[in-house]
Amino acid sequence: MSLSIAASTQDLQPETVFDLLQRVRRRTPRVHAITNAVAQGFTANVLLALGAIPSMTIAPQEVASFAAGADALLVNLGTLDETRRAAIPLAVAAARENNHPVLIDPVFVNLSPVRCAFAKELLAFQPDLVRLNEAEQNALFHDRADVEALIAQGTVLAVTGERDKIESRKRDFHLLNGDPLMARVTATGCAGGAVLAAFASVEKDTALAAAAGLSVFNIAGEVAAGQAAGPGTFVPELLDALYSLSLSDIEARLRSA
Amino acid sequence: MSLSIAASTQDLQPETVFDLLQRVRRRTPRVHAITNAVAQGFTANVLLALGAIPSMTIAPQEVASFAAGADALLVNLGTLDETRRAAIPLAVAAARENNHPVLIDPVFVNLSPVRCAFAKELLAFQPDLVRLNEAEQNALFHDRADVEALIAQGTVLAVTGERDKIESRKRDFHLLNGDPLMARVTATGCAGGAVLAAFASVEKDTALAAAAGLSVFNIAGEVAAGQAAGPGTFVPELLDALYSLSLSDIEARLRSA
Amino acid sequence: MSLSIAASTQDLQPETVFDLLQRVRRRTPRVHAITNAVAQGFTANVLLALGAIPSMTIAPQEVASFAAGADALLVNLGTLDETRRAAIPLAVAAARENNHPVLIDPVFVNLSPVRCAFAKELLAFQPDLVRLNEAEQNALFHDRADVEALIAQGTVLAVTGERDKIESRKRDFHLLNGDPLMARVTATGCAGGAVLAAFASVEKDTALAAAAGLSVFNIAGEVAAGQAAGPGTFVPELLDALYSLSLSDIEARLRSA
Repeated sequence: MSLSIAASTQDLQPETVFDLLQRVRRRTPRVHAITNAVAQGFTANVLLALGAIPSMTIAPQEVASFAAGADALLVNLGTLDETRRAAIPLAVAAARENNHPVLIDPVFVNLSPVRCAFAKELLAFQPDLVRLNEAEQNALFHDRADVEALIAQGTVLAVTGERDKIESRKRDFHLLNGDPLMARVTATGCAGGAVLAAFASVEKDTALAAAAGLSVFNIAGEVAAGQAAGPGTFVPELLDALYSLSLSDIEARLRSA
Repeated sequence: MSLSIAASTQDLQPETVFDLLQRVRRRTPRVHAITNAVAQGFTANVLLALGAIPSMTIAPQEVASFAAGADALLVNLGTLDETRRAAIPLAVAAARENNHPVLIDPVFVNLSPVRCAFAKELLAFQPDLVRLNEAEQNALFHDRADVEALIAQGTVLAVTGERDKIESRKRDFHLLNGDPLMARVTATGCAGGAVLAAFASVEKDTALAAAAGLSVFNIAGEVAAGQAAGPGTFVPELLDALYSLSLSDIEARLRSA
Repeated sequence: MSLSIAASTQDLQPETVFDLLQRVRRRTPRVHAITNAVAQGFTANVLLALGAIPSMTIAPQEVASFAAGADALLVNLGTLDETRRAAIPLAVAAARENNHPVLIDPVFVNLSPVRCAFAKELLAFQPDLVRLNEAEQNALFHDRADVEALIAQGTVLAVTGERDKIESRKRDFHLLNGDPLMARVTATGCAGGAVLAAFASVEKDTALAAAAGLSVFNIAGEVAAGQAAGPGTFVPELLDALYSLSLSDIEARLRSA
């Protein structure tokens, strides 16, 4: 198997990140998010603050209509019930047929073998982007060769944690922004996935879109943490920061390595 | 068909609006809300801030008990899954039998033919109030005669947008309050529907109740926008404004035309 | 039947309450919460602010895996649909097998006979803790003898209201903290149940754990009410207060009688 993992690590330019953010704000893409019950409200508000439009039905009867007309599809596997299991393949097929980017977020696959098996089936759809943390990555892939096989088929991997790594066939990004308060609020990771989906809808280079989207979200988190007294006041501040994030905020804070 | 659409447009008096708000605060009506998964938490908090009591089960086994004992029923068609489809007719029948007002909010019927067909069936129940935006109105009604037929049978229509219009057999209201930030927060429209349901439970003139309820909600939105730095801080400010809205706030801001 | 209801009422010491809070913060227990759709997001944020970890799936296929590996199980009966009905017994059995404490919160059993019957079946599992208000207590128990039989079998009862009472075989607590704004925000009671579950996971004396957990939550409510202008700004302040609650906050405010 010929692997592209020798891809060079690239620096991210503030102007590029801001340009993609402005594209989202101007085009107001609709992201159809099949996401977990805990994350729905916050994810919708993150998308709206960013300038995108959320839709969120999980009903199998209508999810294909919603996904076909959306600009990107987010599939988050939290609270994976029967309705979501039935809806997800229909939504992915509709998004694929209409050439919309598809992002998979295999939340907590490390805690549930059934969910992990379902996530593995989804990888066969060759999603554009998979967002996960290290524990989820270890549950989902047998070894490094498994990871590299996925990347070789064209999927971009965004592995989040204290440091974030974007891996793709062409190039990698190592990102250093964010604040510990983000982990003290539910569904920040899930909502961050929706941000990546919005960015992927305005930029065909998915690795670049993911790097820019994650940087915007994490920089907004830093700005918010500077204003907040704790995880409660952090949430409204994060949404305000996403809403008004400027080029100079990005220039002052963007850190990749 | 004899139509009453020649109804005269009426001005709304601040004292009337405040009187209805005070009735809600004193009587603490329970609104049973079958609403979408994204809107549930925010809708419950809007009702509580207003002085009403939310209940929100969608389980077919128990929704009739909840709706029968409530003071009004809100049916919002967002995230319309099998459980909601089964529950809605049972809840509407229970509310009807007990003479509680029924409000239908056909969210996103323009994006889903299946949902649109379901919404049309619900109109046959002759709901007291239908709240929708222009895109949803265009999807739901074939032409203006369709709209007028619904109004002629006694249903009040609240068409929301930059300007809001309440249409009824007897009279119309044109309302001008609100703030653009309301569209940058998920489920403000949905939660606004719950406010209308609460107002309809304390005033038999449904058009007047809808006009007063929408004005209260939109004026609270204006007060909140004046305090907020973005869509994040807007949410807690909106709830605080609903909680403490005074006659002088209404006098200073109420705009109808 | 030999009853232990002659248990003496005990004072709660601030140092004890703070010690249990610090245990939660250090051990970061995972609480699996099967809770209602309205409460999920807020409950997750309350647990995270407290220092615990939420998991929330209700899918019958995977709920046993989640509950088996968690440190405590919360079963809240709000929005009790088919999926939740199927999941709850599986989760309770998995928690029991692994000796994790189980807390039942029979929300609104007074409004739904079907739900009340289901709650009665759950009491046969001998939960460690049942949290409810007076109306729910009156619906769930035929008379005082019924209540006492449950306590005699080892279940601790937390009856919340303007004053809170913890009843157990060994001793009772009467608690006086809290603020009226807590009732103007949805799911504060439900989220409070999750706090009790977190405390029960770090202290085998369940009555003491419940008294300490409830006091922490209600004192955080008082601190938040002192900062908030209404029920909207109250929510972020409550989360911040939980996050940073100190021994001196508890010393200054703890009231039991």
